[in-house]
Amino acid sequence: MINKLVANIKKTNAPIVVGLDPMLDYVPDQVKAKAFAECGETLEGAAEAIWQFNKEIVDKTYDLIPAVKPQIAMYEQFGIPGLMAFKKTVDYCKEKGLVVIGDIKRGDIGSTSVAYAVGHIGKVKVGEKSYAPFDEDFVTVNPYLGSDGINPFIDVCKEEKKGLFILVKTSNPSSGEFQDLLVDGRPLYELVGEKVAQWGEDCMGDEYSYIGAVVGATYPEMGKVLRKIMPKSYILVPAYGAQGGRGKDLVHFFNEDGLGAIVNSSRGIITAYKQEKYARFGAEHFGDASRAAVEDMIADISQALN
Amino acid sequence: MINKLVANIKKTNAPIVVGLDPMLDYVPDQVKAKAFAECGETLEGAAEAIWQFNKEIVDKTYDLIPAVKPQIAMYEQFGIPGLMAFKKTVDYCKEKGLVVIGDIKRGDIGSTSVAYAVGHIGKVKVGEKSYAPFDEDFVTVNPYLGSDGINPFIDVCKEEKKGLFILVKTSNPSSGEFQDLLVDGRPLYELVGEKVAQWGEDCMGDEYSYIGAVVGATYPEMGKVLRKIMPKSYILVPAYGAQGGRGKDLVHFFNEDGLGAIVNSSRGIITAYKQEKYARFGAEHFGDASRAAVEDMIADISQALN
Repeated sequence: MINKLVANIKKTNAPIVVGLDPMLDYVPDQVKAKAFAECGETLEGAAEAIWQFNKEIVDKTYDLIPAVKPQIAMYEQFGIPGLMAFKKTVDYCKEKGLVVIGDIKRGDIGSTSVAYAVGHIGKVKVGEKSYAPFDEDFVTVNPYLGSDGINPFIDVCKEEKKGLFILVKTSNPSSGEFQDLLVDGRPLYELVGEKVAQWGEDCMGDEYSYIGAVVGATYPEMGKVLRKIMPKSYILVPAYGAQGGRGKDLVHFFNEDGLGAIVNSSRGIITAYKQEKYARFGAEHFGDASRAAVEDMIADISQALN
Repeated sequence: MINKLVANIKKTNAPIVVGLDPMLDYVPDQVKAKAFAECGETLEGAAEAIWQFNKEIVDKTYDLIPAVKPQIAMYEQFGIPGLMAFKKTVDYCKEKGLVVIGDIKRGDIGSTSVAYAVGHIGKVKVGEKSYAPFDEDFVTVNPYLGSDGINPFIDVCKEEKKGLFILVKTSNPSSGEFQDLLVDGRPLYELVGEKVAQWGEDCMGDEYSYIGAVVGATYPEMGKVLRKIMPKSYILVPAYGAQGGRGKDLVHFFNEDGLGAIVNSSRGIITAYKQEKYARFGAEHFGDASRAAVEDMIADISQALN
């Protein structure tokens, strides 16, 4: 799957990923009204609204982008109907040729990690049959529990040709509370980064490992160091746009081959229609506003990389 | 909810929690056969089998125990039908008067953590209505992202009178890889424990804080230290039984009032019928075997505490 991700990035010339993180507030009124008219102001209605919202954004952007990253929390908050919308979104994006990174940040141990892994990127056995319940291409994973938590995911990745992005340095202001603590003079996130590089050694695609890392755009200096520590790991870089990152901050997340990083924007793309810059589209044409925002994001990052 | 947990523990005189972590292999053949006959060898069939398995165990043990801890991964691996069985299990256990600890180990930032929190222990708004999608009483949370990840959960806990157990020192062999790293001579888990105590200060029930911690039974010496660092936090102690912990190892997880810890056993209880000790019950009476295992666990811990 890492090979498909790299191929998609080369084809689109766009090392970006659109975060499909639909809060209900993000969904234009006309989309909500239609969904509520059909299903009521229910969890089903909310799920229908976010699904229709996603579908329009994917339809208007899929030819420009290599990948999407649905954040499962935004669906899980609407219970079972929300998770059905998550699954529908995953399937639809795959039909469109996109690589799907499930932003699930799971992490547990032993048989529990196995269960998450088979549920999201593998197959679960039921009697003589087997099923791929959520079937994302990549998932994000939390490393706090150590190798016992990560290895079951890696095993499933090897079997299914899927991939991981392991949290190393997250984009939020308080990420340093634990991640920056110094261990023998070196911050914890560097040690986690070293582990990611180790875990990834045995998991090479053609050019890159399918064991990647998450490093927030808000910490470009740390990204520069981590890039060197994990030369063969793809870095998923959240927090471009709404959370503060800009193209010029991102250069050092990439390798000299122009590859090695994929930059996520969620709000910046999916709520583009609410921003002054794209207000001309109006809420009616929110998908076109997202397309324009994707084009601007690609231009910003290309310029920074050239 | 911490008050209800403490009251339930006092009433049953049993500081224990039964982990409802049903692998399909754990479910006796007759239960699977019936479920597959009804729903086929499908995700729905698997979900029906684990739900029937859970129901029997709860029916046979609920009067002895204060709480259950369903591990969501074991349900999530069966996709949407599995998660419906999770929700059914949560609801059923609450009807039986049990406190439900959702072992979800979620953790993200900002609006994403809010989404997990409202989805699992709070209420989500849809238009003018609001819903409690999963509605557990407590959830487990991963601290790697720092306060930004935890505070949204705490806010929802305050509003809804729910509670958290934050991962501090997990029970697995490799938990030390990151958690034991020394920061100025002190292991990371102690610093996380101090944060848990701080986060919990402002969240007091009658005797204990509703911000608790997870510390594995497999590390009794560390439990002793952490008990002192977080005197007002309930400690959820996994890994009793199958993973190696025993009653005598657990004494120092408790305060002198005999409270402050709740010990989890999953496999030891729910697969009791497979163990030599309880083989006399046979697979047909697996619920009775679980009841006997619960009685033995309570006796073991009571003896150690006296």
